[in-house]
Amino acid sequence: MVAHYEYRYQAKVGADTRPALKIVPQNKVQTYTFAALQLQRGGQLGPITIAYETWGHLSAAADNAILLTHALTGSSHAHEASAPDDPKAAWWNPLVGPGKFFDTDRYFVVCSNVLGGCSGSTGPSSINPLTGRPYGMRFPVVTIRDMVNAQYQLVQHLGIRSLAMVAGGSIGGQQALEWAVSYPEMVRNVVVVAASAAVTAQAIAFNEIARQSIMADPDWLCGDYATGHGPATGLSIARMLAMITYQSEEAMEMRFSRNPAQREVVTSPTFSPEFGGRFDIENYLYYQGDKLAHRFDANSYLYISRAMDLYDVSEGYPSLDVALQRIQGKALFIGVRSDFLFPAAQVRWLADRVQSVGGDVRYVELDSPHGHDAFLKEWALLNDALRLIEHL
Amino acid sequence: MVAHYEYRYQAKVGADTRPALKIVPQNKVQTYTFAALQLQRGGQLGPITIAYETWGHLSAAADNAILLTHALTGSSHAHEASAPDDPKAAWWNPLVGPGKFFDTDRYFVVCSNVLGGCSGSTGPSSINPLTGRPYGMRFPVVTIRDMVNAQYQLVQHLGIRSLAMVAGGSIGGQQALEWAVSYPEMVRNVVVVAASAAVTAQAIAFNEIARQSIMADPDWLCGDYATGHGPATGLSIARMLAMITYQSEEAMEMRFSRNPAQREVVTSPTFSPEFGGRFDIENYLYYQGDKLAHRFDANSYLYISRAMDLYDVSEGYPSLDVALQRIQGKALFIGVRSDFLFPAAQVRWLADRVQSVGGDVRYVELDSPHGHDAFLKEWALLNDALRLIEHL
Repeated sequence: MVAHYEYRYQAKVGADTRPALKIVPQNKVQTYTFAALQLQRGGQLGPITIAYETWGHLSAAADNAILLTHALTGSSHAHEASAPDDPKAAWWNPLVGPGKFFDTDRYFVVCSNVLGGCSGSTGPSSINPLTGRPYGMRFPVVTIRDMVNAQYQLVQHLGIRSLAMVAGGSIGGQQALEWAVSYPEMVRNVVVVAASAAVTAQAIAFNEIARQSIMADPDWLCGDYATGHGPATGLSIARMLAMITYQSEEAMEMRFSRNPAQREVVTSPTFSPEFGGRFDIENYLYYQGDKLAHRFDANSYLYISRAMDLYDVSEGYPSLDVALQRIQGKALFIGVRSDFLFPAAQVRWLADRVQSVGGDVRYVELDSPHGHDAFLKEWALLNDALRLIEHL
Repeated sequence: MVAHYEYRYQAKVGADTRPALKIVPQNKVQTYTFAALQLQRGGQLGPITIAYETWGHLSAAADNAILLTHALTGSSHAHEASAPDDPKAAWWNPLVGPGKFFDTDRYFVVCSNVLGGCSGSTGPSSINPLTGRPYGMRFPVVTIRDMVNAQYQLVQHLGIRSLAMVAGGSIGGQQALEWAVSYPEMVRNVVVVAASAAVTAQAIAFNEIARQSIMADPDWLCGDYATGHGPATGLSIARMLAMITYQSEEAMEMRFSRNPAQREVVTSPTFSPEFGGRFDIENYLYYQGDKLAHRFDANSYLYISRAMDLYDVSEGYPSLDVALQRIQGKALFIGVRSDFLFPAAQVRWLADRVQSVGGDVRYVELDSPHGHDAFLKEWALLNDALRLIEHL
């Protein structure tokens, strides 16, 4: 997740004086713990805690729930009820709330932190009950399907009988799709934004380079860093790279072009000296890298980005068509014209494929220059696009 | 219970046991040393040695020379006379030689290693005469114009009165363009392949992330590593990233898609364990990273990539048009449809701009899926494109 970016630079002080990593507990975050989960790639993991937030009320029929699924570095905090008009207060804030598309007056809106995350749910920074220390890289490989299966446990726990909608973008879109395929009888509507049946080789390449950057940082310590003392440099570089994939050449050109650094100068991840000046795009990327390194766990980054690579909706089915035929609800696919992480053509292809196997589906493409990030930025376009599912 | 899965760390053998970096001396490489060069960004550097190779013979009129200019990690070895049919024996081998487009029977073909490089020319790995030790990061910022000015010294030394052509791709294309603007009276024809007037914000972003990866490697030692013991991990990661920008989503999809690793497994730059298997694209990138780390100097990578970022053909002129108006020779610009490092639209835009100020110019776009790399790969298309300059 990106996009909520204020171009306010903070002077970065040296590594020693860095505040420890803080995963700020979100407002009213609740947790649900269950014994264990069978994992898609084998073995089981437990106990598992899932952190979640809810807004609105579950109806007597327990059928008015909406599940929102977050992206790579997101959290359960899709909405901030105390600041409904601040688009930066929560990741889908402009879309969630009373009278908004995800209408908390009518729906019981739920968002949970993914399995493998670092905002309250069980992940590599959680304590391994066998050792009393954080899992680190002893955490098992988890997949998008595992994340969805964990969410399913939560949904059951909350007494939800039927989901009016599951919606998410990017890795959240992969989860939404997986919901519609894994639990077709539960999902009446699904919205998949900027996600496809499986990522491209190029997306895997970007993710793997980001992971290598994290693991190359001597502070990574094979994943056994102390909480708050992780590989900040490597994670910053990983984030800088990810930012390229979230934007587009067009958007970067509009915003940064070849301008020299415009604002207060941020220290680079390596504290390296400048040579030949500094471009604004560089300063921006340093800022973004630093920000993530102070709010996110590096091992979670490794695991969740890997889940993104590994996701293939057809896995475990005889064919992609057999998987997609399972979808019972109405499906809305939203691509972004300038997205190069999840190219619009692939989102559209998936929608066409669902339709070809008899699905009740619509595809809409956001005409935005903002690349993948559009799903966290183009509020007016998203609102218009989302309304289409009501007309399916 | 934790899932049962393979997680064997390979012991990371330290930099000590890696073979020393080998910059293999090219066949018949000659050198020319001159006292000093005034640098575009201030100060002077000297003495300067330029490594070069030549093929064919200079005519009595000294006007049949062709200068080929290489890309980021290239060298003077544009042609291998002993293996004229091996496209991998030299970087433009299929285009250079008797009867080829750059016809060594008719032309005196010259290629030199750039200033800042590590294949015989003065660069950050050269001995600083003031200290008796390698320059490292005490090497000054050098620009594309400085590289061209150093080449000009070589051209004068070789007795060349007029260049029949200057041609190069990528950073080599920037040099070719700069030749036509800086020394218009010398250049009768110029061929700029996959290069533009100045790189995009996105290209700067990619380059800076690559540089941060290099500088984040503890073996970098602020640039003061011993020869052969440089930041191999960081340089490998940098190369992996660069490989994405040299290819295209389309080409990667055709070649790798989501296939598992097909061939002998290469160790990753960080010697990290796999989790969730290995994709072929990952294995390929590890291989490419490792290969570069064993043949190229990390500090040269920093300096030359920075020269690429800093290049703006208009620098020092009242306007871009004033700069481009200086071009006297015929100019051929070649873009690649799928190039996202130097987008074809920007190459075309530059060609149009040259034409609009009265230049004798043609633009041709290679319809290749291979991205930026097409200039080192699409021999038939390149040959056809190059012939266009004869019809100007």
